[in-house]
Amino acid sequence: MTTTPSLPRSIIPSASQLRILDQRRLPAETTYLDCTTTDSVIDAIKTLAVRGAPAIGLAAAYGLLLGRTAGQGPDETLSQFEAAASALIAARPTAVNLAWAVEHMMACVRQEHRNAFPEGWADRLKAEADQLFDADRQACLTMGKIGAELIPHGGRVLTHCNAGSLAVSEFGTALAPIYAAHAGGNPVHVFVDETRPLLQGSRLTAFELMAHEVPCTLITDNMAAHVMATHQVDLVIVGADRVAANGDAANKIGTLGVAVMAKHFKIPFYVVCPYSTVDLRTSRGADIEIEQRAPSEVREVYGVQVAPRDVNVFNPAFDVTPAELISGIITERGLISGNLSEGLAQQNEGYQ
Amino acid sequence: MTTTPSLPRSIIPSASQLRILDQRRLPAETTYLDCTTTDSVIDAIKTLAVRGAPAIGLAAAYGLLLGRTAGQGPDETLSQFEAAASALIAARPTAVNLAWAVEHMMACVRQEHRNAFPEGWADRLKAEADQLFDADRQACLTMGKIGAELIPHGGRVLTHCNAGSLAVSEFGTALAPIYAAHAGGNPVHVFVDETRPLLQGSRLTAFELMAHEVPCTLITDNMAAHVMATHQVDLVIVGADRVAANGDAANKIGTLGVAVMAKHFKIPFYVVCPYSTVDLRTSRGADIEIEQRAPSEVREVYGVQVAPRDVNVFNPAFDVTPAELISGIITERGLISGNLSEGLAQQNEGYQ
Repeated sequence: MTTTPSLPRSIIPSASQLRILDQRRLPAETTYLDCTTTDSVIDAIKTLAVRGAPAIGLAAAYGLLLGRTAGQGPDETLSQFEAAASALIAARPTAVNLAWAVEHMMACVRQEHRNAFPEGWADRLKAEADQLFDADRQACLTMGKIGAELIPHGGRVLTHCNAGSLAVSEFGTALAPIYAAHAGGNPVHVFVDETRPLLQGSRLTAFELMAHEVPCTLITDNMAAHVMATHQVDLVIVGADRVAANGDAANKIGTLGVAVMAKHFKIPFYVVCPYSTVDLRTSRGADIEIEQRAPSEVREVYGVQVAPRDVNVFNPAFDVTPAELISGIITERGLISGNLSEGLAQQNEGYQ
Repeated sequence: MTTTPSLPRSIIPSASQLRILDQRRLPAETTYLDCTTTDSVIDAIKTLAVRGAPAIGLAAAYGLLLGRTAGQGPDETLSQFEAAASALIAARPTAVNLAWAVEHMMACVRQEHRNAFPEGWADRLKAEADQLFDADRQACLTMGKIGAELIPHGGRVLTHCNAGSLAVSEFGTALAPIYAAHAGGNPVHVFVDETRPLLQGSRLTAFELMAHEVPCTLITDNMAAHVMATHQVDLVIVGADRVAANGDAANKIGTLGVAVMAKHFKIPFYVVCPYSTVDLRTSRGADIEIEQRAPSEVREVYGVQVAPRDVNVFNPAFDVTPAELISGIITERGLISGNLSEGLAQQNEGYQ
C-alpha cells in the first residue's frame, strides 16, 4: 500500500506551524490552513476543518506546541501548557483520541518541567508528536492488514462517514482494510453512505476512494437498508470516536442505525480503530458524552436553506452502537470478536 | 379538523385547468403551475412538482381530461384518451394510485364512448374526478380518526418523507392521525426525518406541521436510530405508495430502515394509506417496480454539488417494507393488524 499522490494529507506538521487541510471545502477545493497558534488549531478542530478521531488527536498534539516558549520560567511555561491542553481537550467532547494525545504530550511536558525545560525541550516534544504521527500511520497499516483478511474476494463493503486517510495520519481506520484488500488485488466495491448532515461520506470518503481508484457507489444514508435487503452488501466496516470498556462504540451519527440494519440482515459489522480510541475509563456507551451541534447544519446544506428557517432541530453528532451489534473490533493490536469487553482488556494488558 | 388557511393545497382543479402547487420550491416559495394539457400534468408528475401517491392519482385523474374534445368522432376521442392514459400511467411506476385513478377514469370514459360521447360527457367526467377528490379527502379524515386512537396522550411520533396534506387532497395519510390527535387536544410531538435525497421531510412535512402548529423536531434520516434508542419515540407512522396483497409496503426510500429500527427498539410501526394504494394484483413486495432516479439528486442539493462530480450513484426512490415489520395498516376501511394479507383481502370483500 503506497501513498496516493492525488490525495492531500489531513495534517502536515513542520517546525514552526501545523498545516491543516480544510476538509470543509472538499471535494470542490483543496485548501490549507497554516496554523501557528494553539487557538487556530482549536478553531480548526471546532469548525471541523480537521475531523476524524485520530487526526484530531494528532492535530492537538502538534497544536499544543505551537507558540510555546520557556522565556518566563518553568512554572509559568507549564501553566501555559496546561491552559492550552485544557482548551484543546474541550474543543470536542466525544472522540477520546483528542484527550489521549494531549495527555500523552502533557506527560512529556511535565517531564521537561521537572528538569526546568533544558535545552532542546521543544525539539524533543516535537519529536514526540512526530512519534505519535508515525505510530498512527503504522497502526493504520496494521489494521488494514488485519481487516483485509475479513473481506471476501470481490466483497461489497458498506461504510458510514469518513474513517479514511483524511481522518488519520494516512491510510485510514475503516478504509485501511479496503485499501489493503484493493492493493492486494481483491476487486472490492464500497457503498458509501453520504452521512448527513455534513456529508463526510460524499465529500470525503467517495473523494478519497476515487483517488485510490477503489470502485464505489454513493448512496444517501436512508438507502443502506435497501442495499442490504437486496443482497448488495457482504460486510459493514466503520470507524469509532470512542470505544467504552464494554465494547460499546460511539461513532458518527447514523452508525447505530447501520448496525441495527446489519444485524437484521445478518451482515457482519466491524469497527476499526487504533487502540488509542479505546477508553477503559468509560465503562459503557451510555456514559459517553454526545456532542450536540448547531441546528443550521440540518436546516442548511452548504449555506442553502432546505427547511423552514425556524424549525426545531435535534443534531447529535454521534450515536452509540452497543457491543452486541458489533461482530468484531480491529485495532493495531489485533482482531477482537466474541466477548469484546474481555478482548479490549486483554489487548490493554498485553501492551502495558 | 379544519382547513389551515396558511397551508397551500397540492392541487386545485377548475373547469379548464389544473392548478398544481410546485412542491419543488417549498418551503422557500409558494408558486403554482397552471396546467391546461395532459402533457403538462405528466411533466409535473415526473419532475415531482406534485408528489405523494394520492395527489399524483388525483392530478392524473384531472390531467386525463385536459384539452380533450369529441370533435373527431367517438373512436378517435377514445383513442386519444387511451394514449393520454398510457402516458400518465408511465410517468411514475411505483405508486399504484396513479394507475388506479387513471383506470377508474377510463372506465367512465369507455362508458361515454359506448354512448358516442353524448352531450355533457365532459362535465360528467369532471364530476367523476371531483368525486375521487372528495372521496380522498373523506378517506383522509377517516384514517385520521382511526389512527388518532393509536397515539397515546403526549405521544412522540416519528414519520418519514411527506404523507401529509401536500401528498393528498387534504389532511394527509400518515399525518392525518397526527392532525386529528392534535385537533383533539392530544399534545403530540413529531420527529420528522428530513428524507434525502429530495428532503420531503424537511421541506414539506416540517413546513406543514408548523403551519398546523403541531410541535415537531427535524432530524436527518440517520438520527432516527438514536432518537429511538434514547426512548424519544413512541410510535412510527408512515404512508405508502403501494401495498402488495401480502401486506408488504413500498414507500419512500428509507422507510425500510425505519421499520427495521422500530422492530429492534420494539416501537410500533404503522402504515396509513387509502385503500386505493392496496394493489391485490401484486402478490408481494418483491414484485413492485422500484423507480430509479437521476444521480444528480444525490450528488447535488438544490443544484449545489456535494460529492465528486463523476461519482457512481445508486438512487432508488422507494424501498419495500416486509409485512412482518408492520404493526398495522390503516385504510379508510379500518385498522388491519395481525395477518395483514387476510385483513387486506377482507377489506376488499367488504367493499365489492
